[in-house]
Amino acid sequence: MSKAVPEPVTRLIDAFSRLPGVGPKSASRLTYYLLRAPAELSETLAQAIVDLKQNTRYCSICWNITESDPCPICGDSARDRTLVAVVEEPLDVLAVERTGGYNGLYHVLHGAISPVNGIGPEQLRVRELVRRLEGGQVQEIIIATNPGLEGDATAMYIKQQIEPFGVRLTRLARGLPTGGDLEYVDAMTLIRALQGRSQM
Amino acid sequence: MSKAVPEPVTRLIDAFSRLPGVGPKSASRLTYYLLRAPAELSETLAQAIVDLKQNTRYCSICWNITESDPCPICGDSARDRTLVAVVEEPLDVLAVERTGGYNGLYHVLHGAISPVNGIGPEQLRVRELVRRLEGGQVQEIIIATNPGLEGDATAMYIKQQIEPFGVRLTRLARGLPTGGDLEYVDAMTLIRALQGRSQM
Repeated sequence: MSKAVPEPVTRLIDAFSRLPGVGPKSASRLTYYLLRAPAELSETLAQAIVDLKQNTRYCSICWNITESDPCPICGDSARDRTLVAVVEEPLDVLAVERTGGYNGLYHVLHGAISPVNGIGPEQLRVRELVRRLEGGQVQEIIIATNPGLEGDATAMYIKQQIEPFGVRLTRLARGLPTGGDLEYVDAMTLIRALQGRSQM
Repeated sequence: MSKAVPEPVTRLIDAFSRLPGVGPKSASRLTYYLLRAPAELSETLAQAIVDLKQNTRYCSICWNITESDPCPICGDSARDRTLVAVVEEPLDVLAVERTGGYNGLYHVLHGAISPVNGIGPEQLRVRELVRRLEGGQVQEIIIATNPGLEGDATAMYIKQQIEPFGVRLTRLARGLPTGGDLEYVDAMTLIRALQGRSQM
């Protein structure tokens, strides 16, 4: 950049630009905002970024992000240990938890099978899921991967790996989103809603 | 948040959410991205944030952000010291510099008069601009505040302050943006383009 921009400003713009969804324009805006904002915000942000990596790890049971191992969910004796929901990402655990309607455990795969992005099953935490079944406590696996090509491929792969254990295997229902409008719903969702129609 | 989210994750989501244009959803996405990304990215980002505040200051002449005082532009003997463009923000200096078509100096106000946001002229670097005129070297002030209510109010205020010095006072032209389409241009822009029409 031109000499109108000091080196520390350029470096932070470059660093922000490496984050997903942050283009060079937003990166500049964030940087110049921090320049004007109280030093406390910069300090809080920098410290939180450092702490994030230093004070978190993966739960050795469910592979969710956690401060303590096992994580609070796996360590909670009030939760149903016979039920495991398999999700792609830690954010998906959060989404299910927010519903307040699930009391089982989780298993975080950290991704989905995606040949386009070079992600095969061996990069996901599927082996660790199979190992959990060997304990014999789990009675139902709910596949809660994203509704789409990659999530479906991942679901099919997990089905194959899990079948020998004879545990119940279910998937989240597919159909119309609550509050959606039939007129604007995509064809694939509508087909799934028709196929999955239920007796009234 | 629920206990599915460790404390360091919540803290970083909160910190990101304090940045402009970053809602709670984007803040989560950025945070979980950093969790998965190489530690090098977190370290680079945190260090750049710290350095930004520690290694930059305001140029005591033009009030742009700089590493050294005076800034490289004010210190550049090849630039025309009789010409000063008055802009609202450091990013505006960058925008003008990128054109490659300006060889004068700058003056950064750090905002615009905005009664709605409680910003009056005394919060801007107008006094510092007037002081620069006392040197007698400046012959023309180009008001390059944003084209809009606040930028116009700021321009009028500066005009009043500067008139006693008898320097030439100009403003950036208003009219149709290059590449724009007459059909989609807003009424105010079109009125300005009509008022400012020039002989062919």
